[in-house]
Amino acid sequence: MAAEIICVGTELLLGDILNSNAQFLAQELARLGIPHYYQTVVGDNPERIQRAVAIAQERAQILIFTGGLGPTPDDLTHETLADFFQVSLTERLEIRADIEAKFAQRGRPLVASNYKQACLPDGASILPNPIGTAPGLIWHPQPALTLLTFPGVPREMKAMWQQTAVPYLQSLGWGQAPIYSRTLKFWGIGESTLAEQVAPLLALTNPTVAPYAGGGGVKLRIAAKAASVDAATTLIAPVATEIQRIAGTHYYGEGEDTLAMVVGRQLIDRGETVAVAESCTGGGLGAEFTAIAGSSAYFLGGILAYDNGIKSALLGVSTDTLARLGAVSAEVAEEMAIGVRSRLGSTWALGITGIAGPGGGSEAKPVGLVYIGLAGPNGHRSHQAYRFGSNQDRAWIRHLSVQSALNQLRLQLISPVSP
Amino acid sequence: MAAEIICVGTELLLGDILNSNAQFLAQELARLGIPHYYQTVVGDNPERIQRAVAIAQERAQILIFTGGLGPTPDDLTHETLADFFQVSLTERLEIRADIEAKFAQRGRPLVASNYKQACLPDGASILPNPIGTAPGLIWHPQPALTLLTFPGVPREMKAMWQQTAVPYLQSLGWGQAPIYSRTLKFWGIGESTLAEQVAPLLALTNPTVAPYAGGGGVKLRIAAKAASVDAATTLIAPVATEIQRIAGTHYYGEGEDTLAMVVGRQLIDRGETVAVAESCTGGGLGAEFTAIAGSSAYFLGGILAYDNGIKSALLGVSTDTLARLGAVSAEVAEEMAIGVRSRLGSTWALGITGIAGPGGGSEAKPVGLVYIGLAGPNGHRSHQAYRFGSNQDRAWIRHLSVQSALNQLRLQLISPVSP
Repeated sequence: MAAEIICVGTELLLGDILNSNAQFLAQELARLGIPHYYQTVVGDNPERIQRAVAIAQERAQILIFTGGLGPTPDDLTHETLADFFQVSLTERLEIRADIEAKFAQRGRPLVASNYKQACLPDGASILPNPIGTAPGLIWHPQPALTLLTFPGVPREMKAMWQQTAVPYLQSLGWGQAPIYSRTLKFWGIGESTLAEQVAPLLALTNPTVAPYAGGGGVKLRIAAKAASVDAATTLIAPVATEIQRIAGTHYYGEGEDTLAMVVGRQLIDRGETVAVAESCTGGGLGAEFTAIAGSSAYFLGGILAYDNGIKSALLGVSTDTLARLGAVSAEVAEEMAIGVRSRLGSTWALGITGIAGPGGGSEAKPVGLVYIGLAGPNGHRSHQAYRFGSNQDRAWIRHLSVQSALNQLRLQLISPVSP
Repeated sequence: MAAEIICVGTELLLGDILNSNAQFLAQELARLGIPHYYQTVVGDNPERIQRAVAIAQERAQILIFTGGLGPTPDDLTHETLADFFQVSLTERLEIRADIEAKFAQRGRPLVASNYKQACLPDGASILPNPIGTAPGLIWHPQPALTLLTFPGVPREMKAMWQQTAVPYLQSLGWGQAPIYSRTLKFWGIGESTLAEQVAPLLALTNPTVAPYAGGGGVKLRIAAKAASVDAATTLIAPVATEIQRIAGTHYYGEGEDTLAMVVGRQLIDRGETVAVAESCTGGGLGAEFTAIAGSSAYFLGGILAYDNGIKSALLGVSTDTLARLGAVSAEVAEEMAIGVRSRLGSTWALGITGIAGPGGGSEAKPVGLVYIGLAGPNGHRSHQAYRFGSNQDRAWIRHLSVQSALNQLRLQLISPVSP
């Protein structure tokens, strides 16, 4: 038993819209435990839709279509399916009545083309659309084959999926052996290094462990097939614990956690605050802290010292240091942190200075060189130097700078010698 | 001549990631005039990848693969293609050297699995990856069939596409009947209102005019089919001029322009500077200004006054104003702008204070209420109040606040009564 997703729409082939429907349906099939191995995108072209159906029916028993149910002449999904399985289309009076009621309710004029949506292939059941005028269908055109169709409008598709398709698929017992998963997140370690460290676990079959890289971090997804959530949780837990043991402080969180959230929780637990002094990131670190609702409990504010004069005037960075070592230096990063900490009265402070590029690099100080300073209680001052790569773009270097600053504070806060 | 996109990755079938690569490649193929009729998504499974290739090679002459080029055991695209076309994989010394150099530059340890990425099918050319370690390939495994492979990481895929794949495809003359387009961008007007104002132009057939909404702004894409760039430009120019006339100051730029770029160019032309004082955006406005290389010519810096004490201590906002009108008020927004302008010595300054939510709203000051103050020469002070909607999420309200602040300065700088 496998499902297949077929998204119909020339706008997808032109790249005019992002195929978020495929992602939603994929997540839902995984949640229901219905395997699916292929997705196809095809334009509003009857012959090519038929060729896609011919292929898909050979390799899946449930075909899920999105798109092509609208009132305009290029919306052809139901007509094409009727042709392919050689049945007629007939107007359904209950759909016609529903369309007329919905137009009346919105006070909008009904035109002839709207009635096209009332026609379904003979033998198909209506898959009701609670919010729009285009219904879908549920149809068994031949033994061991089930078709479900949905409009391309995401909120209509999702409402129809949740209200009708999910209970229908579950009532047939198709959603079996559900997959549950946990995603562990890591910073400061490469995908290949982490994969090598946990290599024996990558060979497991239930749960499976799969690595993903993205955004400068790495994730490991642990997924279990089991008859219940409890059983899956029991399968996953020891593997997660083992991974955390191996990864040590590279492990920072799970699921939707971000480094900023993790640091925020640490600061709340300790009753401490933080401030930022930013040069090359220009506010990106403050924006990342304050993306979290409730961050006012620990984020006081900061100083954006993009101009060197501001580094001295507002942060008290020594003009001698600036002249001697340059604005991009470990000393300046620390002085920025110390300066903003004293001016804002925070427990901790981070200072970022670097060369985000594309210009401004030199042999000694290439694009991608970033210093991040940390100041804290009891005279704590420290820094890290990063070389993010002179071939990397400005946005990426700034992103890694912000995340690395958060990680630096996170590591300090979990350090056993933390002040 | 047609292309086909094959995206490889179990994470796509699980819905863990959105397939933005397919949209990017679809847009690019449309731009180059290379037809494409199908997209396929398939998991990291050699047998199923081979079945997808067998189908795709029957209906297209250019197969474009994304994903499955990483260092881990489930990354199998090149191995599977070599098997399908019955050739061996051989390590390429130049890729090996490139991988070693990239790891050395970043000071990260290289493990055995990284060398897997140095192996390509015999006969394939290297499609260089300027930013990551996984190269792709360009390969003619049989007559009238060309394969191109890319990693799944979007920024690596895009860089490789633009630097190597586009010139390669163009050199073969595969982009025919080209479509040229210009995209005009607007802020402060809704999609349907703008569409109504330019309604007669939306009915044109060559060039066509199509509206798109996104990110709080609106775009109009004017696309012409013609035998040459010159002919297309001539078709597009009068339509663009007419749209700009109709839209007035809502029109702010074209193509890749952002409001921050447009404001930056205005400031450079005038030899003026800007500073920011941010509360609810927490650095987002500074980050948007400094996302642009060369912004140090006009962006001096700013003060992030997330905490109310900081608004007084560092920006000089009157404690009386704060107590009387509250931190989210027109007066405070103006005082923040005035304060940061005087402390940083900039020509202009913007101050943002508002309720980004989800908490902190009240009947009088609901979530989504944002005041943006502007201070400038000759005692200029002004503000705008925005109600972005109490049902909107924090990230969206912060995004609209940043863009609205930029637009407010843009409108001031083009105003005939500007100081």
